[in-house]
Amino acid sequence: MSQTAQQTAPVTRARYLASDNTSGLCPEAMDYLARANVADDLAYGNDAWTTAASDGFRDLFETDCEVFFVFNGTAANSLALASLCQSYHSVICHELAHIETDECGGPEFFSNGSKLLTVAGDNGRITPEGIEATVTKRGDIHYPRPKVVSLTQATEVGTVYDLADLRAIREVADRHDLRVHMDGARFANACASLEVSPAELTWRAGVDVLCFSGTKNGLGFGEAVIFFDKRLALDFEYRCKQAGQLASKMRYLSAPWLGLLETGAWLTNARHANAMAQRLSDGLTDIDHVTPMFDTQANSVFLQMPADLQAGLRDVGWTFYTFIGEGGVRFVCSWNTTPELIDELIANLKQAATRLGY
Amino acid sequence: MSQTAQQTAPVTRARYLASDNTSGLCPEAMDYLARANVADDLAYGNDAWTTAASDGFRDLFETDCEVFFVFNGTAANSLALASLCQSYHSVICHELAHIETDECGGPEFFSNGSKLLTVAGDNGRITPEGIEATVTKRGDIHYPRPKVVSLTQATEVGTVYDLADLRAIREVADRHDLRVHMDGARFANACASLEVSPAELTWRAGVDVLCFSGTKNGLGFGEAVIFFDKRLALDFEYRCKQAGQLASKMRYLSAPWLGLLETGAWLTNARHANAMAQRLSDGLTDIDHVTPMFDTQANSVFLQMPADLQAGLRDVGWTFYTFIGEGGVRFVCSWNTTPELIDELIANLKQAATRLGY
Amino acid sequence: MSQTAQQTAPVTRARYLASDNTSGLCPEAMDYLARANVADDLAYGNDAWTTAASDGFRDLFETDCEVFFVFNGTAANSLALASLCQSYHSVICHELAHIETDECGGPEFFSNGSKLLTVAGDNGRITPEGIEATVTKRGDIHYPRPKVVSLTQATEVGTVYDLADLRAIREVADRHDLRVHMDGARFANACASLEVSPAELTWRAGVDVLCFSGTKNGLGFGEAVIFFDKRLALDFEYRCKQAGQLASKMRYLSAPWLGLLETGAWLTNARHANAMAQRLSDGLTDIDHVTPMFDTQANSVFLQMPADLQAGLRDVGWTFYTFIGEGGVRFVCSWNTTPELIDELIANLKQAATRLGY
Amino acid sequence: MSQTAQQTAPVTRARYLASDNTSGLCPEAMDYLARANVADDLAYGNDAWTTAASDGFRDLFETDCEVFFVFNGTAANSLALASLCQSYHSVICHELAHIETDECGGPEFFSNGSKLLTVAGDNGRITPEGIEATVTKRGDIHYPRPKVVSLTQATEVGTVYDLADLRAIREVADRHDLRVHMDGARFANACASLEVSPAELTWRAGVDVLCFSGTKNGLGFGEAVIFFDKRLALDFEYRCKQAGQLASKMRYLSAPWLGLLETGAWLTNARHANAMAQRLSDGLTDIDHVTPMFDTQANSVFLQMPADLQAGLRDVGWTFYTFIGEGGVRFVCSWNTTPELIDELIANLKQAATRLGY
Repeated sequence: MSQTAQQTAPVTRARYLASDNTSGLCPEAMDYLARANVADDLAYGNDAWTTAASDGFRDLFETDCEVFFVFNGTAANSLALASLCQSYHSVICHELAHIETDECGGPEFFSNGSKLLTVAGDNGRITPEGIEATVTKRGDIHYPRPKVVSLTQATEVGTVYDLADLRAIREVADRHDLRVHMDGARFANACASLEVSPAELTWRAGVDVLCFSGTKNGLGFGEAVIFFDKRLALDFEYRCKQAGQLASKMRYLSAPWLGLLETGAWLTNARHANAMAQRLSDGLTDIDHVTPMFDTQANSVFLQMPADLQAGLRDVGWTFYTFIGEGGVRFVCSWNTTPELIDELIANLKQAATRLGY
Repeated sequence: MSQTAQQTAPVTRARYLASDNTSGLCPEAMDYLARANVADDLAYGNDAWTTAASDGFRDLFETDCEVFFVFNGTAANSLALASLCQSYHSVICHELAHIETDECGGPEFFSNGSKLLTVAGDNGRITPEGIEATVTKRGDIHYPRPKVVSLTQATEVGTVYDLADLRAIREVADRHDLRVHMDGARFANACASLEVSPAELTWRAGVDVLCFSGTKNGLGFGEAVIFFDKRLALDFEYRCKQAGQLASKMRYLSAPWLGLLETGAWLTNARHANAMAQRLSDGLTDIDHVTPMFDTQANSVFLQMPADLQAGLRDVGWTFYTFIGEGGVRFVCSWNTTPELIDELIANLKQAATRLGY
Repeated sequence: MSQTAQQTAPVTRARYLASDNTSGLCPEAMDYLARANVADDLAYGNDAWTTAASDGFRDLFETDCEVFFVFNGTAANSLALASLCQSYHSVICHELAHIETDECGGPEFFSNGSKLLTVAGDNGRITPEGIEATVTKRGDIHYPRPKVVSLTQATEVGTVYDLADLRAIREVADRHDLRVHMDGARFANACASLEVSPAELTWRAGVDVLCFSGTKNGLGFGEAVIFFDKRLALDFEYRCKQAGQLASKMRYLSAPWLGLLETGAWLTNARHANAMAQRLSDGLTDIDHVTPMFDTQANSVFLQMPADLQAGLRDVGWTFYTFIGEGGVRFVCSWNTTPELIDELIANLKQAATRLGY
Repeated sequence: MSQTAQQTAPVTRARYLASDNTSGLCPEAMDYLARANVADDLAYGNDAWTTAASDGFRDLFETDCEVFFVFNGTAANSLALASLCQSYHSVICHELAHIETDECGGPEFFSNGSKLLTVAGDNGRITPEGIEATVTKRGDIHYPRPKVVSLTQATEVGTVYDLADLRAIREVADRHDLRVHMDGARFANACASLEVSPAELTWRAGVDVLCFSGTKNGLGFGEAVIFFDKRLALDFEYRCKQAGQLASKMRYLSAPWLGLLETGAWLTNARHANAMAQRLSDGLTDIDHVTPMFDTQANSVFLQMPADLQAGLRDVGWTFYTFIGEGGVRFVCSWNTTPELIDELIANLKQAATRLGY
């Protein structure tokens, strides 16, 4: 994310709710990392951990998908998009999509120029109508031909696409020969929120490629790029290599993932984070001038609040982002966000509101 | 340009007003091309024609600028922008800018990913305020750092930036260490419209690089990329070569340019085109339901008119573009547009309006 | 070409034999260019000249190929190669191939990183064995996967691949799923030399894409990229557009080509140039210390000669390249090289040799 | 590395000497990683670990350098090179340089086309004469202008450049305005070998940018890109971000580095690895038909041996690479290679030699 995370010096008890990337490795991830460190192993993914983690994803998604591990989300999404289109094609995404707003031109760099065509949409969701309009707007060669729809699950504003949403997008995608890419920066949170299986939420609903974030789910690094349409994965390992995304000691990416998968932490972490966001959301219903901006469907809470109230929070050490419109504030919960921290935030907010006379 | 130029089969007398690129070479350009063909000459710009044309630009602009000849406007603008920033920088331009809407991702391709940040602005003009807001919006590394302002002169909607507009843009550019690029697809028309010298309208008003279009001014091909800040031109000849824009028989690009410069046709062509646009604009004031969308300041006329009226024109062979909003129509005049053709269009439009009961 | 074309100031009678790009437009090309200039026409290739020229190529090649016109050879070859592989693939070519030695990284730029893997080969020809060795050398992902064979016809040293050579290359290409690209900078000269039809020398011998140079064959600009495997041409028009290779007034590229095709000048020009090279070759057999480096099979003559002899030629105004090894000199003949000029060169060479005591 | 690491299934006691990337994290790295995981921390390098590690490098190099952490060596070298030149420039390197032979076109991808110009040189070392010849060979725009010299320290064949070598390279670089990049995949091993300080071996000897590998020195991931000429680092953080090399949880890259620096493990690890290579080298002097290919100056040993001897080793579980010429074998030692393992290899080799009658 971006812009103005008012980051102060670390305090004894971290009041970091700017993003789910301020949390560390969860115990399950650390445990498997340590286990992978017991013995030497083969490089470049030829180790047993990588094989097991890849198979773990195949089990989780109940299909014979192609799995690749890369270092971070910028690379995962950019490489996946580059594999779905050529430089003179375009990618349709929401105007708030992370790939558009917070990657410093990463997708354009990896694809060597594929343009992102943005569409508006309520609650951070791209709509079939928006896609349709973008594809049919023009058909001349001066307009980069749309080839991919990219959607973020959960969205950048903490909402989710349900199965009907996804199927409707697949339908318009089919009509126009578009591939469907899912930026799964918070995919686990979406699964937890909707209580549907990963398979249901991806390939069974028409997703071609998923970038499943481990970093926001309790790892130190490591995103899995998962191709459900295996033909699209052709030579993807070369693409990763050339682009600086082939880890020589790959087991340190894959073993922690295996930890998440084998223990089920991928889901319990997400459920916990979602529950904390809900707790925050619920605790704020009776503060005047603090109003929710979006439904809390995953692990983020977006609130509208006056500037002096924001300042009041910062004064006592809270970090958060303010990038969605005037007066908008985002809090993100993680696998290790405690109920106590949430309650403390609510209390601080109420105190500040009282002090300021709201 | 783009989208829906309803192009029909050629008619005896061409009713092409879709763009100034349907006209051929003007006599002066053809004359010099023929002269350059009399004898063999050195390749890659080491010929006398190229030297003379480059010097011709230095005379015209009253300064010791660096001059490069490339094949077309996509390349001229894209190469110039690529030389002004790195892939992780960004270019601020109007939301209607040709580089944004009609280059199929060309600027992103040549720069390997520099993002275009678009701003709104009345009459096709970017404003200092819009630039300021875009630069100061964010300062984090997830946002590609703005490095260039690109403006089109005359604009994509047939208006011009006057000297005060340009100076105000330079002022904000200086404040934020931005370079100023001018897409001069219709630069000659702007000079003619404002009755100011090329020097006044460029480097004296703060332009760092101008892409001066010959194609729309009476050539077959050939744009001149002119660097007023010579340091920015460092190794630009290598950039052109690598990107497929070094003509081996360069005299066929430069000699026609010399024809325009030595005869003054660059300006008389533009004046004529502007006058034809004005004639059209003036002749339509009394047709109901046909309303001007923008001031006619150069060689284009934008009109709002009902769909059946548009159809009525197409039925009798007129070609034109309809890419600006609902019901918007563009007519572009050129060096060889005749008064008779304009009068014929006006007459046809009146007839159709009458027939349709407007 | 490259390096050290000792280019002097133009002399009354041009003694330019540095390259076939010092010649101008041949009469047939100029005639059609003038005809295309009689009336306005539609832009971006929607004109009748472009249609006719494309059909002309289909006739010439006796097959329903896809035809695209671009500005120059750097672009033609680079775009064609980029369409045949991805950035993490590689292109096998001769170590003297123009794409390797004289494009300033153009192929790598257009493809965003595809590596050229060079192989040695006598007489400028790549061999099946060289290709085989390069493909089978490695199969790991740290080595960019070979996907294309590029060969130049006629070669950079003035020799040609005969039909058996081409078929043998196709055979190894098939075995390793490689596509075959032909850099036809002097394709017409090869046809003339071998006295075989364009169809025989391309798709019937296994060529997938040909870049047919017009510039070296009597045009001012303009190369035709011809896809015999039409599937490889998918969206190539977008690629051209994005990369600055879509001419708005395309008829000025296509009409001169039509002139070459309809009049047969493409072949007569090439035959003439070849004959002049042969005349030069034949005229030098009895000068001591001037020895041929390669067979003269097309329009170039490569000679080994002492440095003082070279200087003697330069002193009387001859321009030529010296880029092939120590003491190697290249002379290239063109459609308008006269027998008188060749005889003059031979005479000058003999005089200098005598004077220097060879 | 590449080609044919004959990798078998893991055995109880790993006989991996294919590369120093089969080893895991050293205890010091793991310790600091665990410490960094105790508390939440700010993202994107705004954490205390990253600050401390960066300062640690400044201390180590005794200068105020700019320090960036990226994920792997492909990215470190490619990004550093891209920051030193433009796409139409070139990089001079040894023909065995990893950037040339084993990055699948990574440098060309990140730089958007900068060509690598390779030179030969004994013992894996590029020479001032080789650089000079490459720069002065041509000066035309068809040849990508040399802008960078890249050298690998220790080299790809296990030798090192001493201070005199480096100063001589700097001298030729200065003469031609070239920047000097050091691929420090095994930089620590070179420091250990030469017993000179990091400062002596880099900026004091004229290195502009060093890519210091942590992965091969005892980390799981993480290379430090260190700019001694700070002007060259301008906006490098944006470049990293765009190219997918900005870790959100950067402390997991930087904290292990801090572990290496604070404990001195960076050097003790390297010394140990070098000593093990020396032990291997020393132990093989009396085996017939096993001959050293290069001096053992760092942590690699290159041996010439018959194919059946190689097979004999593989049969008992040894992994190693065979990519340098016919019959060449490479063994690489690491921070955790034991004397027992080396002795076992020597013994196995002797047994096989005896058995085969050598």
